[in-house]
Amino acid sequence: MTEELPINLYEYERLAKDLISQPEWDFVEGGATDEITINRTREAFDSIMLRPRMLVDVDRRDLTTTVLGEKIDFPVMLCPAGHHNRAHSEGEIATVRAANEMNVGMILSSGSSVVMEDVASASTRPIWFQQYFYRDQAMTELMAHRAEDSGYSALCVTLDSSVQSKRERNIRNNYPRLATPNYDGMGSEEDFSVRSSYSPSSDDAPDNVTGLVSPKVTWEEFDWLGSKTDLPLIAKGVMTAEDAKLAVDHGVKAIIVSNHGGRNLDSTFATIEVLPEVAEIVDGKAEIYLDGGIRRGADILKAIALGADAVLIGRPIFWGLAAGGTEGLKHLLGILRDEFDSTMGLCGKPDIKSIDRTVVGRKSPLLDLI
Amino acid sequence: MTEELPINLYEYERLAKDLISQPEWDFVEGGATDEITINRTREAFDSIMLRPRMLVDVDRRDLTTTVLGEKIDFPVMLCPAGHHNRAHSEGEIATVRAANEMNVGMILSSGSSVVMEDVASASTRPIWFQQYFYRDQAMTELMAHRAEDSGYSALCVTLDSSVQSKRERNIRNNYPRLATPNYDGMGSEEDFSVRSSYSPSSDDAPDNVTGLVSPKVTWEEFDWLGSKTDLPLIAKGVMTAEDAKLAVDHGVKAIIVSNHGGRNLDSTFATIEVLPEVAEIVDGKAEIYLDGGIRRGADILKAIALGADAVLIGRPIFWGLAAGGTEGLKHLLGILRDEFDSTMGLCGKPDIKSIDRTVVGRKSPLLDLI
Amino acid sequence: MTEELPINLYEYERLAKDLISQPEWDFVEGGATDEITINRTREAFDSIMLRPRMLVDVDRRDLTTTVLGEKIDFPVMLCPAGHHNRAHSEGEIATVRAANEMNVGMILSSGSSVVMEDVASASTRPIWFQQYFYRDQAMTELMAHRAEDSGYSALCVTLDSSVQSKRERNIRNNYPRLATPNYDGMGSEEDFSVRSSYSPSSDDAPDNVTGLVSPKVTWEEFDWLGSKTDLPLIAKGVMTAEDAKLAVDHGVKAIIVSNHGGRNLDSTFATIEVLPEVAEIVDGKAEIYLDGGIRRGADILKAIALGADAVLIGRPIFWGLAAGGTEGLKHLLGILRDEFDSTMGLCGKPDIKSIDRTVVGRKSPLLDLI
Amino acid sequence: MTEELPINLYEYERLAKDLISQPEWDFVEGGATDEITINRTREAFDSIMLRPRMLVDVDRRDLTTTVLGEKIDFPVMLCPAGHHNRAHSEGEIATVRAANEMNVGMILSSGSSVVMEDVASASTRPIWFQQYFYRDQAMTELMAHRAEDSGYSALCVTLDSSVQSKRERNIRNNYPRLATPNYDGMGSEEDFSVRSSYSPSSDDAPDNVTGLVSPKVTWEEFDWLGSKTDLPLIAKGVMTAEDAKLAVDHGVKAIIVSNHGGRNLDSTFATIEVLPEVAEIVDGKAEIYLDGGIRRGADILKAIALGADAVLIGRPIFWGLAAGGTEGLKHLLGILRDEFDSTMGLCGKPDIKSIDRTVVGRKSPLLDLI
Repeated sequence: MTEELPINLYEYERLAKDLISQPEWDFVEGGATDEITINRTREAFDSIMLRPRMLVDVDRRDLTTTVLGEKIDFPVMLCPAGHHNRAHSEGEIATVRAANEMNVGMILSSGSSVVMEDVASASTRPIWFQQYFYRDQAMTELMAHRAEDSGYSALCVTLDSSVQSKRERNIRNNYPRLATPNYDGMGSEEDFSVRSSYSPSSDDAPDNVTGLVSPKVTWEEFDWLGSKTDLPLIAKGVMTAEDAKLAVDHGVKAIIVSNHGGRNLDSTFATIEVLPEVAEIVDGKAEIYLDGGIRRGADILKAIALGADAVLIGRPIFWGLAAGGTEGLKHLLGILRDEFDSTMGLCGKPDIKSIDRTVVGRKSPLLDLI
Repeated sequence: MTEELPINLYEYERLAKDLISQPEWDFVEGGATDEITINRTREAFDSIMLRPRMLVDVDRRDLTTTVLGEKIDFPVMLCPAGHHNRAHSEGEIATVRAANEMNVGMILSSGSSVVMEDVASASTRPIWFQQYFYRDQAMTELMAHRAEDSGYSALCVTLDSSVQSKRERNIRNNYPRLATPNYDGMGSEEDFSVRSSYSPSSDDAPDNVTGLVSPKVTWEEFDWLGSKTDLPLIAKGVMTAEDAKLAVDHGVKAIIVSNHGGRNLDSTFATIEVLPEVAEIVDGKAEIYLDGGIRRGADILKAIALGADAVLIGRPIFWGLAAGGTEGLKHLLGILRDEFDSTMGLCGKPDIKSIDRTVVGRKSPLLDLI
Repeated sequence: MTEELPINLYEYERLAKDLISQPEWDFVEGGATDEITINRTREAFDSIMLRPRMLVDVDRRDLTTTVLGEKIDFPVMLCPAGHHNRAHSEGEIATVRAANEMNVGMILSSGSSVVMEDVASASTRPIWFQQYFYRDQAMTELMAHRAEDSGYSALCVTLDSSVQSKRERNIRNNYPRLATPNYDGMGSEEDFSVRSSYSPSSDDAPDNVTGLVSPKVTWEEFDWLGSKTDLPLIAKGVMTAEDAKLAVDHGVKAIIVSNHGGRNLDSTFATIEVLPEVAEIVDGKAEIYLDGGIRRGADILKAIALGADAVLIGRPIFWGLAAGGTEGLKHLLGILRDEFDSTMGLCGKPDIKSIDRTVVGRKSPLLDLI
Repeated sequence: MTEELPINLYEYERLAKDLISQPEWDFVEGGATDEITINRTREAFDSIMLRPRMLVDVDRRDLTTTVLGEKIDFPVMLCPAGHHNRAHSEGEIATVRAANEMNVGMILSSGSSVVMEDVASASTRPIWFQQYFYRDQAMTELMAHRAEDSGYSALCVTLDSSVQSKRERNIRNNYPRLATPNYDGMGSEEDFSVRSSYSPSSDDAPDNVTGLVSPKVTWEEFDWLGSKTDLPLIAKGVMTAEDAKLAVDHGVKAIIVSNHGGRNLDSTFATIEVLPEVAEIVDGKAEIYLDGGIRRGADILKAIALGADAVLIGRPIFWGLAAGGTEGLKHLLGILRDEFDSTMGLCGKPDIKSIDRTVVGRKSPLLDLI
């Protein structure tokens, strides 16, 4: 842990930039093509205003909530992101300890740098596993069974990565393929390669596994997977009401509204912008988590006000890990928690369920008036 | 007083920056987290356009008005802000003299650097006192009685500060706790301390008294306070129509629409943006004062057009004091008055009551047209 | 005339900046307080988009029009602006020659540097005279009679200058009072002085005559003036539909939609923004001229599309004069004419009357669609 | 071909800037007056957001489409732009080879640097020819017959260039008239000259032929031309629903929504903004191509979603040619194709006909909600 503790996530970001090598930094921070989505996803939060209420008893604020029945200390989870060893030598082991000790959720990426069974063993509380639908259906089932067998309590299927994206920073850096221990022995060398006119000499695969992921599957595959595992299924990457409805119709237990951190398809809306249409159509039939752009405790409150049950953070995981491994990530999570706590108090919201849409506004009240 | 007189409030701000130490300057100018609210509160005024009327007799412009029955020369009051000695050695004594001589309102902060009884003694015209609802109800009553006994003519209760905010400039500066003479002998050392993950070594309390303020009280406490004092009650920190209605229902005599200068909860709307919804629901049952972002005489007119009876200025108090104590603040107030006078004249508004909503516009008239 | 001819008005502006002394430049270019209106007035034009039509016969484009029955070669007039000798030693004599030779309209300011009778004598075509309603009603009548007697063919009364504005550049420059030959022998020294808290040592009077102008008069004075002169009356400074209606009701022949170039009241709408509401209520009962922000031929077309019969230019007069006196101003006017001609042709508009509202748009067509 | 291959069109632009002389660069990149339209045309794409769908079978993506019955590999065509020899010595011969080898459409400009018959001979697949309506009707017919005789399969008539525009970069550069071999022996020297107050010493004619183009013709001329040729007619330069309707009424086979790259009339809407109103009124009665601002594969998808059958690129032709002649342009086209392919896949769109309006959004979903 460094001497000077950052006091907010932006300071963590600046600190981490000096601690992570440039190609790795570009991989973590960068996104698809013009990074329009990255910027919009973040800035959308700052365009949402709060409407604080006064003289509400907020003496004992309860930040806890449950996600798929598991209690967490505040509504934050660590999103599935590959290769935490980019930021700290202990990789996901450092991460899971932080999640345990802060009592927040964690979804392990199938692209983790530590094999999934070892991360599960290191965890003292429920964590979840993320995977894809693979071209090889047996691989899909095998991953799910490994997750179930090693003790993960839910299965998150990422839907938005079945086609190669264009991450230009990685192309310029000729970013290499990293080891993906969860996939050892699976797929051929060719499966890990993608070629296009703009990346003649490198494969730019998210978590290096895009070549394995099937662009062919439909919601029937979702039903099939549900029949093969007892784990509750979570759909990650939903960005429309239409898909949210399909997800619910196909028995999903939770939906993650995510644009993959702006890393796959550029020029999508911010996730916070599409959250309300998802929340409206889901109408309580599944839990909803928001992924993308959370940097302040106030962002958490805004997401909950617009329909999220919890939020995910991605890039900040690497910032915290880089700054100090488990302790760095814990401190970063503590900042988010304390900011969220302060925001709840100042808004007159004593607990999660008291946070509703009346606490947020976006259009200037003057606009339709004068 | 310096040689070169500033000609507007922005020049005063620049001048004061050189006269006040950096940590104090950061305390005065800064706000919560990303200071989104500070910027929005100011810029919202510049987005409101004026619709001037011609050939109205504005030869003798009457800028006077009354606040809670007391006549002031123009609709400006000095908002309750702690520790005026940050800007001038005489502190609130210098301030009250300026308010007296310019015949504008003043609300003394309970966090004043001069004890409230001395400020009251120094005043030749009615001034008001600001306090909080404290964890210790006896303290609440005591403060109110001291205000009444020492001659304050109204009691302003700040509602928006019952939970610790996050002012990052102060955290970085390790800003110290200042003496708060009005609270001498009250509370324990611990009450003045707040700890969080992001301020491990300092307590960052607005006016250093947040620890004493109760986050538990509700509008019943407001009723109770009303029963303990003959002073008219003013509710400061209302930012929604909902709370404005509650305030009126609980007998408030005036409402201060305030976001605490962007110092407590970040990413609220600008106060001028929520003023109309407050004015509409209050509907004349209480007076309404607007706090936040007033830097030009035109801003005063805009606030009145949208429903305010008067406006408060905060940070400019420190600028005027730093530049020249009583004389500096008087000159600064004179600029605001003269700008307001000129704006009234150029808009064809001879007096306060002639300023109505037809004088302002925000949406471009072209927008719904072509 | 300089060697390198500017090719647009912005280049003229840059050129003139080097040719005019800084205090004079600030006087010409500057405006009231924060100059919000100056910027908005200009930028509003750039927010209006054109909808060009194809395969219209535009072989012979007719740019001519009439203003109060007088034919001009294209719909541009020189607005009343004081002291053209700031830019060229010949002052308004140089200006009137340019207006004559280019056959455009000109309104002489009562604050001209050349006495009104001499300018009238130098003109070979109809020009108009601008004046105020003065505190001394006899002065109002005298000016009107002098205009009539010396051959001016219309009388433009400026309505928006009866109260002192705050032009901070002039205050900082301690800008001096200039000679106003049309007022020689009128008023006292005191009438020319204005004092306020922000201009302790200078009088900052527009054209130095604000002290003479009456802030007391109402539309009855307008009727009275109409009874004292045979000249058609033009009301300059109308910025609302309400005042446009009053002007028409009181027999005005033309209305100039003007915010005085942002020099008097700051934070008004752009003139092009309020033009449509004026045009709608006037409904052909008077002519309408737009003043403010015209820098491109396309701006002229936009103004006509939104209801103007012609436009006025102000600051560009000084730019042209500074660059080359009569020849400079003629060349500048030629640029405007040629740009307007090209814009008409490219929009498929062969003459002035073919320019209607369907040629402009402001809201993105996508906005209500997706 | 340079060593380092650009990975997107913006990199191509930067590379080309160093390879093309400054006056030529200014000609290629620049536009009319303030270049408002150039910027808007580009930026409008970035304001349109995508709504990706998940779990759609996109394994085999079909990017092919037809334009006027001819199959192309992806919906891109090379727009008619004059003088490709500005960027590469082989001129349009290099271009047509790239179009052939990538199997995309090409419209040869009548202002080409290689005579039209030679380009046609060099082409192994159908290409189209662009011309104007000339002052000399015989010339119009002659050009059409030459196009037909030399094997062009469609005739594109540019409608938006019948009046001289104002391209200030060219005026400043005193940009010379270039040889126009297709016009050899046609017109007089005077026809190629245009004079105005702002271009005293140069003629600034788009493709140097504006002097030949008739500003007089109407839609009857369109009918007449149709009677003189068997080639299908394409109308280029439509920017309103009104003209789109007229074009359809007059038997056009395809409409090119184009603002001439912002080179003729400044301050038009972006082409992508007016595309929907054109598509709505055309209602399938003609094909629609969008010209202007395409820089990313995602832009192609957005245009198709809003009603285009294909898109045209203009300036990027020169970038590709400058970087490497035929190979450079082929590589650039490959980038566009691969980006479009990736965008289709990530949006869940397996083929062109699956791309409908539900995939795009512009207004933030939050705007009408909170």
